Amino acid sequence: MTAVEVDGRIVIVDTGLMFPTADMLGIDLVLPDFSILRERADRIEAIVLTHGHEDHVGALPYVLREIGIPPVIYGGLLTIGMVRSKLDEHKLRDVPLQELPAGERVTAGPFGIELVHMSHSIPDARAVALYTDHGTVLITGDYKFDQTPVDGIPADVSRLAELGRDGVLCLCGDSTNADRPGVAPSESSVGPALLEVFRRCEGRIIVTSFASNVHRVQQAIDAAAKLDRRVALVGRSMRKNFNIASNLGIASAPQGLFIQPKEVEDFPDEKVVVISTGSQGEPLSALRRMAHRDHPDVELHSGDTVIFSATPIPGNERSVNETIDHIFQIGAQVVTAADAPIHASGHGWQEELKLMLNLTKPQNVFPFHGDHKRLRLHADLAAAVGIDRERIFIGENGLTLELDGSKARWGEDVHASMIFVDGVSVGEPDEFALRDRRKLSDDGVFIVVTTISADDGSQVADPEVIFRGVPFVEEADGLREELRDVVSATLAEAAEDQVRDVALIQEDLHDDIAEFVYEKLRRRPLVLPVVVEV
Amino acid sequence: MTAVEVDGRIVIVDTGLMFPTADMLGIDLVLPDFSILRERADRIEAIVLTHGHEDHVGALPYVLREIGIPPVIYGGLLTIGMVRSKLDEHKLRDVPLQELPAGERVTAGPFGIELVHMSHSIPDARAVALYTDHGTVLITGDYKFDQTPVDGIPADVSRLAELGRDGVLCLCGDSTNADRPGVAPSESSVGPALLEVFRRCEGRIIVTSFASNVHRVQQAIDAAAKLDRRVALVGRSMRKNFNIASNLGIASAPQGLFIQPKEVEDFPDEKVVVISTGSQGEPLSALRRMAHRDHPDVELHSGDTVIFSATPIPGNERSVNETIDHIFQIGAQVVTAADAPIHASGHGWQEELKLMLNLTKPQNVFPFHGDHKRLRLHADLAAAVGIDRERIFIGENGLTLELDGSKARWGEDVHASMIFVDGVSVGEPDEFALRDRRKLSDDGVFIVVTTISADDGSQVADPEVIFRGVPFVEEADGLREELRDVVSATLAEAAEDQVRDVALIQEDLHDDIAEFVYEKLRRRPLVLPVVVEV
Repeated sequence: MTAVEVDGRIVIVDTGLMFPTADMLGIDLVLPDFSILRERADRIEAIVLTHGHEDHVGALPYVLREIGIPPVIYGGLLTIGMVRSKLDEHKLRDVPLQELPAGERVTAGPFGIELVHMSHSIPDARAVALYTDHGTVLITGDYKFDQTPVDGIPADVSRLAELGRDGVLCLCGDSTNADRPGVAPSESSVGPALLEVFRRCEGRIIVTSFASNVHRVQQAIDAAAKLDRRVALVGRSMRKNFNIASNLGIASAPQGLFIQPKEVEDFPDEKVVVISTGSQGEPLSALRRMAHRDHPDVELHSGDTVIFSATPIPGNERSVNETIDHIFQIGAQVVTAADAPIHASGHGWQEELKLMLNLTKPQNVFPFHGDHKRLRLHADLAAAVGIDRERIFIGENGLTLELDGSKARWGEDVHASMIFVDGVSVGEPDEFALRDRRKLSDDGVFIVVTTISADDGSQVADPEVIFRGVPFVEEADGLREELRDVVSATLAEAAEDQVRDVALIQEDLHDDIAEFVYEKLRRRPLVLPVVVEV
Repeated sequence: MTAVEVDGRIVIVDTGLMFPTADMLGIDLVLPDFSILRERADRIEAIVLTHGHEDHVGALPYVLREIGIPPVIYGGLLTIGMVRSKLDEHKLRDVPLQELPAGERVTAGPFGIELVHMSHSIPDARAVALYTDHGTVLITGDYKFDQTPVDGIPADVSRLAELGRDGVLCLCGDSTNADRPGVAPSESSVGPALLEVFRRCEGRIIVTSFASNVHRVQQAIDAAAKLDRRVALVGRSMRKNFNIASNLGIASAPQGLFIQPKEVEDFPDEKVVVISTGSQGEPLSALRRMAHRDHPDVELHSGDTVIFSATPIPGNERSVNETIDHIFQIGAQVVTAADAPIHASGHGWQEELKLMLNLTKPQNVFPFHGDHKRLRLHADLAAAVGIDRERIFIGENGLTLELDGSKARWGEDVHASMIFVDGVSVGEPDEFALRDRRKLSDDGVFIVVTTISADDGSQVADPEVIFRGVPFVEEADGLREELRDVVSATLAEAAEDQVRDVALIQEDLHDDIAEFVYEKLRRRPLVLPVVVEV
């Protein structure tokens, strides 16, 4: 999510989300912290979306709900189609979504806005040129320079060169593959490789990829058709995205090629290709369920070949490997991008990043979309093509960059970090809840309920001891007994000292119980003493 | 852990442990389930250890404590040294640890035992030949055929060939790298590559590797000495393992080369090499703490170069990548095995596995030590060198293989799976505790304490409502109020229906509260109602 402000007016480019990392226990989604925009909602002229991936559009429903509906939302044809479907699911209707054809310039307050056609692993990816009185800001979105894209329309290098000739004040550039020397393989190199692998398969073929990679899915469909195999699209997002793309004329399949997932078992193995979600080993995805023999329609068996036309996103290696190993255990074959050139990244490699820099000749460079390593390597590439180190800015989330026609400098830090989505709640990272969950997930919880007399603080009933998630003590009646003794002793002492403040008694109980439990179990569960006065 | 039984007598080869995967919340270690050996403890003739890695010796203290001390424990020199130190830490003394030199044959009941020298990523790795009346069982341990190992003693191919000539009944072979074509690079190729990288570093050097890879640490020390840099060993296991190896004459350093970790900052950057634990991004390791600016002795800064002389073990990719990115954020340089040939695997690749099969010409092959994928690929290699598919057995943990001179077949399934170590407790996987922890880690816990009269079931005190780890409701007094109403209604209904069984009332409360909480929060925390009768 990038916000560009000129004369108090704002254009937002992309509103993506992040999937939670392993330490964010129980968190469903992570959004950018857009609270700074809340008090400036009436200054927003437009939201511009570069492409339809979740990390660029996924936060949009939350942004619209929290900040309000902006005058207009621009994007490419498929982007708008996918976002419309997403907003429908969130029951957000009457949102001013508008396709902005590449090369067409519109005005929004003090901004001119133009989209520039780029290649990526989803159709209709665009760079965004924002024209202002101070100069042009170019935000690349995610891109590669695919010279032979599947749709036949390469990235618009001519327009980028014109922008460069006319002067670019600041280039905000995708850094994802800043560590890979050379040029990314073309998406259209994947089709023949898939066909080649398909040809060698004697049994059923299951191919998995990102559902949003419409051109990849199209190439798998084409390969299946060439070999006279029927195709089943399996997984909700696979079917949904293909439908949207197909309705927009971006994807197609011969009449009668498709079969329903539940028909898969009715056709001979050598006549079927299943195209499935789950290339990242996602817990509830179709492929993962197949690998765990838990899919309602497709039962994997020996003779099947599962083709991963994707590589694991960093962090997903373990779930992908687990999925692959389950497939091996069933006895099916697995083909990955390590075995055949059946995947091509959607992000340009070093030579492409340098080409972008040389085409647009920016006065200032702002590498973004990458971890610290890749941001630094992108900065090194900019320096390598001759851009002054003082004109290269590696930012942090929330740090503003101030630009005018002559110079750039770091501005205010608006402290934008992350917002967590946790069930239906949306809010700042709740450090206490997360810390408690971490403790709970490690060592469980110990609850001791004591009932004391409001008159003299004496025990009225036996303490109740409850533990959950604490290991191997379920049958430990002895421990429970001893713990009751600890509680009685603490309460007796409190009564003797005439401590009558329930909070103080709870504190004493907490410390004594925690110490006892640690001594016995060498564990530090969450200890919750409850004192009931009657 | 492999147990070989002949005429009711048993030899155990290796007693390793596993580190818990992400879904084993709060579990510290995973042991093989050796309960079947408990009732047969008096039949155990010996434990033989192939090498000193945790996944081969780590369960030994638990095995000795649970099953008892066997008549003898054999292993190579360093293996015995490392195990002795480990048992000392567990206060297990007077254990009959005995170095068995390679090539020397001893007798243990109906077994002849001989160790065969192999190469691996730790010195003194051995294969185990067990001679029995039915034939010879050869267990490779972890191995590679390094033709130029650092200690100058290659794997004993001649002895393996002799064993093959005399007849091997069954080969149990390491499958770790069954998916990699060719031959693993030699460990001694790493030293020159490290020196080359060191030479290019102008500032401080921090190199990280496995502490047990003594030859790797030695090569880093030698490179530092050549460049006239002082060396600090940082991290407990790094110091411990080097000390053990050094006392046994397996590692050495020039007098005066070492400095203490706390002296690092006293020397000029270009005069220091830090050799550190943490190559896997382990949470409490020295390197991870440096990357988080939290190490007491070494503060990373721009100009430092951190060299990863190791690759991530599958599953550790994320923590390694996070560590690397933190180092980039600090501004230091990072060199990994992707940038220079500074790592060599300790497990042989496909050509080495085939060489082992051709040398030993086994009647039966039992691929082990690998996931399902690699076991199957190892089986394919065995078939490729001409072994009958019916003589190749891919097992599961707990499944026994019965062999006699003429044939082999699957025997009884003794259901050995895993044992969890959780704090000081050791036991069967506690599915209830783990399930609770998963729930707790996702959605937290909701506790409602009610106090009712033992006479008529009426409420005596206001219900106490406590929640921990539940998101974003910390200030939700309204919710607490509403919940009290829910509780009162449930109790009133119970009193009206004359329900006096506390367990039944708790069940009612649980269902009503869980429904209410889900409706409000769309979350399913663990709900614990407590009813106190006074």
